[in-house]
Amino acid sequence: MDKTKQPRVIVIAGPSGVGKGTVIKALKKLRTFRISVSHTTRNIRPGETEDISYHFVTREQFRGLVDEGVMLETTIYEGNYYGTSRTAVEDVLAQGQDVVLDIEVEGAKNVRRVYPDAIEFFLLPPSLAELEQRLRDRNSGEDEQTIQGRLARAREEIACAPEFDYIVVNGTVKQTAAVIDACIKTHFLRAKERAPLVDRLLDGETITL
Amino acid sequence: MDKTKQPRVIVIAGPSGVGKGTVIKALKKLRTFRISVSHTTRNIRPGETEDISYHFVTREQFRGLVDEGVMLETTIYEGNYYGTSRTAVEDVLAQGQDVVLDIEVEGAKNVRRVYPDAIEFFLLPPSLAELEQRLRDRNSGEDEQTIQGRLARAREEIACAPEFDYIVVNGTVKQTAAVIDACIKTHFLRAKERAPLVDRLLDGETITL
Repeated sequence: MDKTKQPRVIVIAGPSGVGKGTVIKALKKLRTFRISVSHTTRNIRPGETEDISYHFVTREQFRGLVDEGVMLETTIYEGNYYGTSRTAVEDVLAQGQDVVLDIEVEGAKNVRRVYPDAIEFFLLPPSLAELEQRLRDRNSGEDEQTIQGRLARAREEIACAPEFDYIVVNGTVKQTAAVIDACIKTHFLRAKERAPLVDRLLDGETITL
Repeated sequence: MDKTKQPRVIVIAGPSGVGKGTVIKALKKLRTFRISVSHTTRNIRPGETEDISYHFVTREQFRGLVDEGVMLETTIYEGNYYGTSRTAVEDVLAQGQDVVLDIEVEGAKNVRRVYPDAIEFFLLPPSLAELEQRLRDRNSGEDEQTIQGRLARAREEIACAPEFDYIVVNGTVKQTAAVIDACIKTHFLRAKERAPLVDRLLDGETITL
């Protein structure tokens, strides 16, 4: 079976405020995939939609899902739980579609264990100053300590970037999405993906790009 | 120092008859690089130019170069010696330009040892039947035994394809060149290439794609 035709898990990770959601929205215009909807215990924000932005659940419900073993990854951020259910991911893959996960760095590490052939991207901000500005703009009214906490965590997460497959600087959203799209296309040309193709050629089949 | 800015060795390998030379010519229209000129002991063919197609040398001269230790890789094909001098490659890199090597599979293995960060492509034919046809067209008048020998060698070489970085099926030359160009661009976004970028960001610098 040609691995290039198999649906894949695509991970988009990076520090809070780097713009993962916006980039994924721009990527939607370039390729077909589905976004895995995460569970969270945080409150719904203006502009968010239940079961589309997140599955909003109580802490008790969240713990129940973890106990049932259906969570692929979970993470705590600012005192709230976030998580991706394995069922949601598997359902999309079973339909033959790629599934994009918008997740935190810790979560990405767990996903890597379950899906070692996931294609993983880490988004970097153009600078730490820029990230700080984005965090302040997004969370206006937060106290200085919270902002500094987010920045400290961002630095720790950024240090994990080399564990991913690709590192992309999110300067211009449109360009970032185009670059991610190009990386996914060329990823399937990497030799480790193409051993089955070589076998088919040697078996006398005609193969294509 | 940003590794993306360092000139690189780009290897284009594949079985004889797969069209390496034609693809490299098409790649020239897409990006700037220089082609390393190989040494060979075989006779010059119609349409070839001394010191551009190859450095044509005698067996004694070739052995002398090997003894001097200047050959980066050597290989024997159909009773003739072929080789790339390390000096030629280093000269191009020192000028800040990428250098493309059009070499046999055995030679590519040697290059990998000297330049572990070379970007290596293996070109496959769309089918073995197509490769056979190309070999017959190119070497009209050769006896059946020679053709069969070339094909047997091609099969052995193709089995080594998974050792390379990327495997590209050379169906349409223009498309093959475009795909190689895209792979080189995205190669520099691979995490193992970008650790210095992450360090610079954490040091407070502004970085770009």
